[in-house]
Amino acid sequence: MNRDNLTKMTKLEVVVTGADAPAVHDLFRSCGATGFTSLSGVSGLGHHGYHQGRLLFNQQATLELLITVVPDDKADALLAGLTALFEETAGVMFLTDTYVSRADYFS
Amino acid sequence: MNRDNLTKMTKLEVVVTGADAPAVHDLFRSCGATGFTSLSGVSGLGHHGYHQGRLLFNQQATLELLITVVPDDKADALLAGLTALFEETAGVMFLTDTYVSRADYFS
Amino acid sequence: MNRDNLTKMTKLEVVVTGADAPAVHDLFRSCGATGFTSLSGVSGLGHHGYHQGRLLFNQQATLELLITVVPDDKADALLAGLTALFEETAGVMFLTDTYVSRADYFS
Repeated sequence: MNRDNLTKMTKLEVVVTGADAPAVHDLFRSCGATGFTSLSGVSGLGHHGYHQGRLLFNQQATLELLITVVPDDKADALLAGLTALFEETAGVMFLTDTYVSRADYFS
Repeated sequence: MNRDNLTKMTKLEVVVTGADAPAVHDLFRSCGATGFTSLSGVSGLGHHGYHQGRLLFNQQATLELLITVVPDDKADALLAGLTALFEETAGVMFLTDTYVSRADYFS
Repeated sequence: MNRDNLTKMTKLEVVVTGADAPAVHDLFRSCGATGFTSLSGVSGLGHHGYHQGRLLFNQQATLELLITVVPDDKADALLAGLTALFEETAGVMFLTDTYVSRADYFS
């Protein structure tokens, strides 16, 4: 397909407990993310449970999946902030290359 | 991993208000998407809110995350249709390269 | 952005009926996935419905979106297992390259 009108960005997906979600929202904002999408009704198991007898989340926890899309130049700060946050609290994150049509919405 | 049996496709993720979701469903269909997945329980903030004092969505809106996977040759039409739709209504979309095992399901 | 501290992995997204979700959980575990995220409140149409008059899911089915992230060397077994499962039951799956900061959580 024709990607001339698309801009490559970084999509960050973060899974945290509902209690920790506001800290992630604040981090998104302070790192210059212009918005995010939040999904409730999320449960999770692991990542650690099966192999090391230690659960990152237990199956009863109320979790949130938070998705934001940022230009590459903001992704480093966001990644550093999340890494620091996850030293104190449970959470997982994935980064994926994604393309958007209206880069100004995310910059 | 071995990707010989996988086919590269385009995954489109769209976030719109519940009121606008049927128009996106119709667009998916008219552009030849063979199916989609819809997630409710979605909230969103931005993309625009923090920086420009204008919210694309307000936090109370009921949103839907719609996911479809199409062959590359259908992605252009879908992208054009969504771009036109988003000139009239609030919404964000991301495109991501993805791989599927049964290409015929999506073609 | 700087990806020196990130590890490339494979993200698998699977959509199945709620009834089939436990079989997918078991498969994730037996293939060495260290965890997964599950989203309820999911509905789906297709992939097959529009073109071939046959629905993979009907719109009333209660579906789950299951997300797991695995190292590439585990992705092949997982893909083989899901392919076998989907010969007996309805479901779709997408594979996407993704990056994680703490590879040990997923290995």
